[in-house]
Amino acid sequence: MPIKTLQDLFIHELSDINSAEKQLSKALPRMARAAEDPALIAAFEQHFEETQGQLERIDQVVEAGNFKLKRIKCAAMEGLVEEAKEIIDEIPKGPVRDVALVGAAQRVEHYEIAGYGTLVALAKTLGHDVAASTLHATLEEEKATDIKLTELAKTTINRKALLVK
Amino acid sequence: MPIKTLQDLFIHELSDINSAEKQLSKALPRMARAAEDPALIAAFEQHFEETQGQLERIDQVVEAGNFKLKRIKCAAMEGLVEEAKEIIDEIPKGPVRDVALVGAAQRVEHYEIAGYGTLVALAKTLGHDVAASTLHATLEEEKATDIKLTELAKTTINRKALLVK
Repeated sequence: MPIKTLQDLFIHELSDINSAEKQLSKALPRMARAAEDPALIAAFEQHFEETQGQLERIDQVVEAGNFKLKRIKCAAMEGLVEEAKEIIDEIPKGPVRDVALVGAAQRVEHYEIAGYGTLVALAKTLGHDVAASTLHATLEEEKATDIKLTELAKTTINRKALLVK
Repeated sequence: MPIKTLQDLFIHELSDINSAEKQLSKALPRMARAAEDPALIAAFEQHFEETQGQLERIDQVVEAGNFKLKRIKCAAMEGLVEEAKEIIDEIPKGPVRDVALVGAAQRVEHYEIAGYGTLVALAKTLGHDVAASTLHATLEEEKATDIKLTELAKTTINRKALLVK
């Protein structure tokens, strides 16, 4: 299916973020098991639950608009998940791995912030007002998760890792 | 070189962003040639110049701290650049490709915002104050580029693409 119009691009971007969310949905439980800090584990588990809701929102947008998603694999999320795997392989469980996991998770959140930001702008331009507000709700969740991870890093995780010799 | 301490992780993250910037530095001229809108071409060209300065800042941090960067390839930036290539392959030159290129570039910017955000926090925690402020300057440039791309999309590029039938 070639991309000719802005509507085609909207469907392509929606298919991309759908693939990204599905890949993340598989990675988050692994990241939660790999973490040590209880608050970080809880944050990953909570974001896993949120991700299920975000996938449901994509389904709602698809059904309401009678859109047909493409079966594509988001290459960027593949790279981001690969980076998280490398961290788990290279760093033993503990405070330093936790800091690295926060960094990997924030890269993921920022990918999604950019992706949903584009989607909301395209939906508005195309006059898909309900889709725009549905996707905007997810955008706000991704931003809130990013801020939460920053707070977690600043208040406890980074300092705990500094003590590792 | 295993990652045991927060300092090891700082070097790992610095090596990762160094690889990301180098990959981006090769991709930006291709993105500029692939774009049609003059303001978007100018934005890509300007960000290419900025990227050279950002690579120099990494060199400054490395030299001042007498750090040794690792030769690693940033997997996430590989995926992000791959996505930009797919756009160029799949969408003919014109307004719709321009919108897609803005989306790809904003994903790249957000990767860098997350990466430099982590680096600045680690530098501060480790007491590398000069490195923190040098890397913070780049972080602010990445944020400004992201905002500029959003403005470009909102004011002209998205609307031009809506007219493509």
